[in-house]
Amino acid sequence: MSEPTALSAELTSQARELDKADELACLRTRFVLDDAVYLDGNSLGALPVAVPGRLADVLYREWGELRIRSWDESGWWTAPERIGDRIAPLVGAAPGQIVVGDSTSVNVFKAVVAAVRMADEDAAAGTSEREAGAGGGGVGRRDEILVDATTFPTDGYLAESAARMTGRTLRPVTPAEVPAALGDRTAAVLLNHVDYRTGRLHDLPGLTAAIHEAGAYAVWDLCHSAGALPVGLDAHGVDLAVGCTYKYLNGGPGSPAYLYVRRDLQPRFDSPLPGWTSHTAPFAMRPAYEPAPGAVRGRVGTPDILSMLALEAALDVWYGWVDGKESGDGKSPGPAQEAGAMIESVRAKSLALTDFFLRCVSAYVPEGRVECLTPTAHAERGSQVALRCDDAGDIMKRLIAQGVIGDFRHPDVLRFGFTPLYVSFTDVERAARVLAETLEGAG
Amino acid sequence: MSEPTALSAELTSQARELDKADELACLRTRFVLDDAVYLDGNSLGALPVAVPGRLADVLYREWGELRIRSWDESGWWTAPERIGDRIAPLVGAAPGQIVVGDSTSVNVFKAVVAAVRMADEDAAAGTSEREAGAGGGGVGRRDEILVDATTFPTDGYLAESAARMTGRTLRPVTPAEVPAALGDRTAAVLLNHVDYRTGRLHDLPGLTAAIHEAGAYAVWDLCHSAGALPVGLDAHGVDLAVGCTYKYLNGGPGSPAYLYVRRDLQPRFDSPLPGWTSHTAPFAMRPAYEPAPGAVRGRVGTPDILSMLALEAALDVWYGWVDGKESGDGKSPGPAQEAGAMIESVRAKSLALTDFFLRCVSAYVPEGRVECLTPTAHAERGSQVALRCDDAGDIMKRLIAQGVIGDFRHPDVLRFGFTPLYVSFTDVERAARVLAETLEGAG
Repeated sequence: MSEPTALSAELTSQARELDKADELACLRTRFVLDDAVYLDGNSLGALPVAVPGRLADVLYREWGELRIRSWDESGWWTAPERIGDRIAPLVGAAPGQIVVGDSTSVNVFKAVVAAVRMADEDAAAGTSEREAGAGGGGVGRRDEILVDATTFPTDGYLAESAARMTGRTLRPVTPAEVPAALGDRTAAVLLNHVDYRTGRLHDLPGLTAAIHEAGAYAVWDLCHSAGALPVGLDAHGVDLAVGCTYKYLNGGPGSPAYLYVRRDLQPRFDSPLPGWTSHTAPFAMRPAYEPAPGAVRGRVGTPDILSMLALEAALDVWYGWVDGKESGDGKSPGPAQEAGAMIESVRAKSLALTDFFLRCVSAYVPEGRVECLTPTAHAERGSQVALRCDDAGDIMKRLIAQGVIGDFRHPDVLRFGFTPLYVSFTDVERAARVLAETLEGAG
Repeated sequence: MSEPTALSAELTSQARELDKADELACLRTRFVLDDAVYLDGNSLGALPVAVPGRLADVLYREWGELRIRSWDESGWWTAPERIGDRIAPLVGAAPGQIVVGDSTSVNVFKAVVAAVRMADEDAAAGTSEREAGAGGGGVGRRDEILVDATTFPTDGYLAESAARMTGRTLRPVTPAEVPAALGDRTAAVLLNHVDYRTGRLHDLPGLTAAIHEAGAYAVWDLCHSAGALPVGLDAHGVDLAVGCTYKYLNGGPGSPAYLYVRRDLQPRFDSPLPGWTSHTAPFAMRPAYEPAPGAVRGRVGTPDILSMLALEAALDVWYGWVDGKESGDGKSPGPAQEAGAMIESVRAKSLALTDFFLRCVSAYVPEGRVECLTPTAHAERGSQVALRCDDAGDIMKRLIAQGVIGDFRHPDVLRFGFTPLYVSFTDVERAARVLAETLEGAG
């Protein structure tokens, strides 16, 4: 299949047309890319062009010259909330509810423990609907945490620790089993919006509603959805959420994660990691902890400024863009509506990319050679395609050697992530074609 | 006192001679400095010259070009332990016991919870000496955590959370009160090596021995000692330790902290934050947590690479230097002995700097105008001098305006930190002289 066939000529030409019509195509130049087809942005996003220059300024001027003064004068101190507000429109959150810092794992621990404590508070007050219905006072403690059994492992490990340290039982269930598993015993539920392995998109609105119906708290992990599709945290009444920023948000390797606490729950957010930067008066150095109001309460230690400001620069790509046209220099923070509108365009392109990839794979790859683990229904698909084949580890090595970068997930999964900000339809056709050639060569 | 007096001429000349004899003076050029006297390195260390170039390479080549491959090919994945091993000789630790990551606050939580769990394990096994003496089995649970009542607040807040989540009582005591407070009820003790406010150096060897005598675990916070004086973690049998890297280690604003777990305790380190990167097989993505052996067990989430590699470059200053001569390009990691020897030279210079500062202050500043909170005995002094005066906030503002950068600690403390790597005796004389002039002007 290395000679162009009529089929590949047709798909190549379709790819060109799709690229021509792509209103996001202009954003590709905002990233450092090479001749490879980079389909691993769901593991590590590509380098945004704006980052190195911004970081040089942070190093030479803000740290090197202003030094300690930069905590105030360069806005270092308020970076966690400021950058949280830049992420907010991408996940459907109004300002003041997201704080950036720590790793996703640490934020999972904060969120799950805080959710359990909220459930405890409800039980003590007899306020949840079910408990009120059951007669008010004297209700039992909710002793169970449900966790997505198909989750990225770290969520399960941290949920287990949260359960152990709050005296709960952790019960792994698939997202589909959640509605049946919910009940008076459920304190909190930790779920992934998109499955890291299969790319399956779960029903955040429906599951959140079911969790609330049971009087429990919903904690969502947005690692594989934020920046790739609309989340609608506020609209769907999600209680707490966490996510990383190094995938579709392109913040850089291991860049700081974030924590969302819904505004009305913030006064009840009782952190298991009450560090000094979440204190209401951090520089008063008081011996007693008094949590700050608002999103700040989710902070722990001193913010990691270099990584945080690299992330802030990376987020510029979401601002200064309206309806397919670049409206500014990308540096001035545009209105939240703009970023909110852009995520809708990103979702549309994401689905078009994965649709086209599936079409090309089914055109090029012989029936039965790979099995698609990603749902074909749009409502159930994230921004990645996972293909199962027995020799996946070997195939992925060969693909990478030929400039098609995806990743391998043990034991038999080829994983391809599609970042609509910089992946083109031409990339997609090439990836499918090289995949078919590679499978044929290995077959 | 703005005209040179005989006294200031004499001290200025002495400063010049001390600078001439200073074997560490050659290191000053490895930092970005200006005309100011920077005595705030105990809050944020100055920018090492090597950092921006290294970070540009990390951005453009490692992230921009190699992208995901850098986790292996650029050594990103192993950075937390590798950089831990570069810090190790500075705090008297053999390799394999320190891991870099998270904030100091998060590491305090890990360390205190892990220490309490070790005490639980001892009680269950009846292994601690006292308990064995009391008749072996059936001994009571150690229900108390002692915490330094003069600590930097975050340690107290996190210790309180650790106590709450392990069902213990937190008892604040001054370090001097620790020996009397220790007993069969003590599970763990969290102490600061150097008091952030007064600069008092506490007796780490003596207190650690007393804690062990009581069958409890010692957790030390090294934020204000590491990089300024020898710590001797291994030599004194410290159990667990934490510290930041943005003060005397010059890692940059909010750079990642570190955690030390003594080698023989590592198999018993039961983390409250068991993230996937501390798993024995992180990429097997197994649902059950199985902790890795060694220092890796102290990890949590994905390492924050940009900040971590900036720190690694900052630590170069400790390598490639022997006996006052620069032996290399500072980039190749020299032997640990070298860094270990250098910290002794750093301590000698630190004491000489603070001695000279106290002499200049007492020569220039009228008796009674300020009160020195820092002990004069070398064995009790860290690398800072804290002076109390009623108008400290105003005085510090004026000092900074005149190019003498220290900081103010509520309500009445002027804090001056002396980083021997880049502070000169000429700096010290000038700082004391400007301080005297400022106090006179404000008097």
